[in-house]
Amino acid sequence: MSLLVVGTVAFDAIETPFGKTDKIIGGAATYIGLSASKLFDKISLISVVGGDFPKETIEMFKNNNISVDGLQVKEKEKTFFWSGKYHKNMNTRETIDTQLNVLESFYPHVPEKNKKPECLMLGNLMPSVQNQVLEQLKQRPKMIVLDTMNFWMDHYLEDLTEALKSVDVLTINDEEAEQLSGEKTLLKAAKKIISLGPKNLVIKKGEHGAFLFNKDKKFYCPALLLENVCDPTGAGDSFAGGFVGHLSKTKDYSFENIKKATIIGSAMASFCVEKFGIEGVKNATKDKINERVQELSKITKHEKINLF
Amino acid sequence: MSLLVVGTVAFDAIETPFGKTDKIIGGAATYIGLSASKLFDKISLISVVGGDFPKETIEMFKNNNISVDGLQVKEKEKTFFWSGKYHKNMNTRETIDTQLNVLESFYPHVPEKNKKPECLMLGNLMPSVQNQVLEQLKQRPKMIVLDTMNFWMDHYLEDLTEALKSVDVLTINDEEAEQLSGEKTLLKAAKKIISLGPKNLVIKKGEHGAFLFNKDKKFYCPALLLENVCDPTGAGDSFAGGFVGHLSKTKDYSFENIKKATIIGSAMASFCVEKFGIEGVKNATKDKINERVQELSKITKHEKINLF
Repeated sequence: MSLLVVGTVAFDAIETPFGKTDKIIGGAATYIGLSASKLFDKISLISVVGGDFPKETIEMFKNNNISVDGLQVKEKEKTFFWSGKYHKNMNTRETIDTQLNVLESFYPHVPEKNKKPECLMLGNLMPSVQNQVLEQLKQRPKMIVLDTMNFWMDHYLEDLTEALKSVDVLTINDEEAEQLSGEKTLLKAAKKIISLGPKNLVIKKGEHGAFLFNKDKKFYCPALLLENVCDPTGAGDSFAGGFVGHLSKTKDYSFENIKKATIIGSAMASFCVEKFGIEGVKNATKDKINERVQELSKITKHEKINLF
Repeated sequence: MSLLVVGTVAFDAIETPFGKTDKIIGGAATYIGLSASKLFDKISLISVVGGDFPKETIEMFKNNNISVDGLQVKEKEKTFFWSGKYHKNMNTRETIDTQLNVLESFYPHVPEKNKKPECLMLGNLMPSVQNQVLEQLKQRPKMIVLDTMNFWMDHYLEDLTEALKSVDVLTINDEEAEQLSGEKTLLKAAKKIISLGPKNLVIKKGEHGAFLFNKDKKFYCPALLLENVCDPTGAGDSFAGGFVGHLSKTKDYSFENIKKATIIGSAMASFCVEKFGIEGVKNATKDKINERVQELSKITKHEKINLF
């Protein structure tokens, strides 16, 4: 009865039109775990860091009901580091530096007690590592969500295609959906991708919201309108955390509840982009989360239209 | 009890990644009038064409319940011509050629019987011409909708600002909202623009849907997901036509009904972009329109979220 989160725990250095950071805490699993912890309290992390990773951040995970038994600390190595710069409109970014470090030889050991999770979140990571986690589980989780990115489509498409066969929800952005499907329109891309295996597909469009598809239904959730956007890093992971956190909490995997998860994910992403790094998500209160979820829920509400 | 539509009636030559046209029928008032005529049948056009404009198109307007008493035909002059090319993703375009022709000396004579319209749609046109129409009316319409574009903001901002003071709804796209307000985020831009006069503001985002704002409310409508998009020309005008056509028909100018108008406008724009020129809008049937309106209405529907 738990949520297992697999992904990177990392250092990031980020530059956006609104500022620049030194090395700060980042990583897909970090954002996913923290975001999910706002909704659900039985979370276990599978990841790896080096001896240079701050012990107080590991404590911070524990204090947020995130078990770190599956977080390997390789004392003699260094933590994964990514550095990137966002362009003017923040829709595009370039990678300045990537130092794989501990990730180069990472094998994800799933602790015995975590081998029967109710929900599994495979955060953005090498697809073979995502598959290694799947292989160690003693029963199929009720809900497997997988996030990935263009880099793995470019270089590890075979492993990714293998992983896709068994997932309940795939979350990718619109450009990645185009790349993975070879289709130009979202509708055609969604059909094609669902034919590859995922039962549901979330196509994230950043400030333009997110589409949810299954074989015959679709749903759309806008992004929250914000007065200030500072740093998009981790937005997709924060979305995934809110999304899978809600599903883990409610144990309801119907399309109707996956719609709600999409709205909650969208709200969690809105906290992320307001601050550099994890600050926005970390400090989101229950009241604020609920306020934003209700605002997102309300903004598309309208009366029935009787046209002719 | 009628809808007065002011705007260009023109020739266009369009190139998109999906093809290229010779001179075809275009113009803001053409798209607006045809789109509105699918919902409402008391429409009058104020515009100007040259002697080269096909008589059968003028007949086509009449056959669609669009009065052309206010359409000036300057036999010895040529019709306004615009030629443009859309780039790969169809979000940006460049103007290849603009020949103002009859527009250079256009004064919009409003026929006596059209001087008390219930609704007025000021289509994209020189702001001074939009103001000249306003000045000739004998009473303020119940609903004034104004569409404009960046060109008028660049060169005729004073006239435009004057026009904005008296409108009920301004429709512009996201880039134009940024330009008009000087604000980077949609939320700040909307606040600023509403402070300039318009009671309501629609910010069109093309394939990313449309936001509707008034002083204290907001609403969002996505764009319809289409399998094939061919030519975005006239999409904004088709939106405006559906929008103001619905308001003219229902005579209900509440925010709740303006929301519905936004959905109907979005549906009408979806017909426009599927074909080159006016073909998509012209051939939209009542059944198809209703189907798309209901689909747009449904795609954001979800149950109430009880979060904590």
